[in-house]
Amino acid sequence: MNDQMTIACLDLEGVLIPEIWIGLAEKTGIEELKLTTRDIADYDELMSKRLGILDQNGLTLKDIHGVVASLDPLEGARDFLEWLQNQVEVIILSDTFREFAMPLIAKLGNPTMFCHSLSIDYETYKIKSYTLRQKDQKRKAVIALKSLNFRVLSMGDSYNDLSMLEEADAGIFFRPTKKITEEYPDFPVTQTYEELQKHLCSVHGFRP
Amino acid sequence: MNDQMTIACLDLEGVLIPEIWIGLAEKTGIEELKLTTRDIADYDELMSKRLGILDQNGLTLKDIHGVVASLDPLEGARDFLEWLQNQVEVIILSDTFREFAMPLIAKLGNPTMFCHSLSIDYETYKIKSYTLRQKDQKRKAVIALKSLNFRVLSMGDSYNDLSMLEEADAGIFFRPTKKITEEYPDFPVTQTYEELQKHLCSVHGFRP
Repeated sequence: MNDQMTIACLDLEGVLIPEIWIGLAEKTGIEELKLTTRDIADYDELMSKRLGILDQNGLTLKDIHGVVASLDPLEGARDFLEWLQNQVEVIILSDTFREFAMPLIAKLGNPTMFCHSLSIDYETYKIKSYTLRQKDQKRKAVIALKSLNFRVLSMGDSYNDLSMLEEADAGIFFRPTKKITEEYPDFPVTQTYEELQKHLCSVHGFRP
Repeated sequence: MNDQMTIACLDLEGVLIPEIWIGLAEKTGIEELKLTTRDIADYDELMSKRLGILDQNGLTLKDIHGVVASLDPLEGARDFLEWLQNQVEVIILSDTFREFAMPLIAKLGNPTMFCHSLSIDYETYKIKSYTLRQKDQKRKAVIALKSLNFRVLSMGDSYNDLSMLEEADAGIFFRPTKKITEEYPDFPVTQTYEELQKHLCSVHGFRP
């Protein structure tokens, strides 16, 4: 490893935990919650739709926490994260809402996460509104971290990770679809934590 | 709390853990390690001196880890940190070296920390050199986080925290000396985690 301090930026869903909206759809039986950016391309519009569905079904943050708390991080995620944190600083860059993800973030040991947020009425636990913190937030976070003289490594699985993979000093795919790896063949592809660790050791000087 | 996402920037030594160099001096009996910026004003020069002393005494990173691992976070620090992480994002801003502090950082649950770093020969565990990541790093970190549309709260105890207290949307003293509070009377002063929590609840909308 060179002398510059390294920070690793990790996507959350699909990399450390399962997809929360899919989990919510399956556990609540509300099929509409499975809508993704493939169905509604605009993320803002999609979120508005999803939160509307929750509201129509009378689901409060407490109900959602109940569901999210019943999910678990991906197998091996916690160990991988600790291994990584032991060697470099880590920040999760995610397009989730902090308030939704908290039960799973707690199971990961409360890593720092840059994401979006909900406004909650903490008397009724109803969701009042949501705030997308910043457009193109993953790319901007990498730029900000580089301005603090960090060497940035990014790891993600999907289209909303491309900006941080591109902007980082090195970007790595973790469990991506075949389609995205064909479209963006320049990023190394890893499928398991073991493989990712080996890659970080051999290419980026991490210790086993 | 307003709708802007909040991030709390915490100093490490004196706020969550004891002063590492004082601990090293006491546990090793090497009095010279108690030198501070009051003795050698230039931080870079002081660090150079301190690392020279370690080298003269044949102390490797392993020895230092042994000492640091025997220290504990301040009483209540871990609970306070978890309370804080449950409500907002948290980043530690410290002028320590990551490699020194790791055993104590692990005891705090591996929070993300922006600090400085050492270059280590991992065969002999000898310290080869050190890198101060960036001048005025605490201020620059707050500026970067604000550029990511975070509301920033900073908490620190000492002179090297003033820049982040000033640059943040709100700065709070925690266990400062009387002298610094007299010189900088504009920052609220808290002395215990309980008092700090009460302040965050009453002034910044945190939940008890």
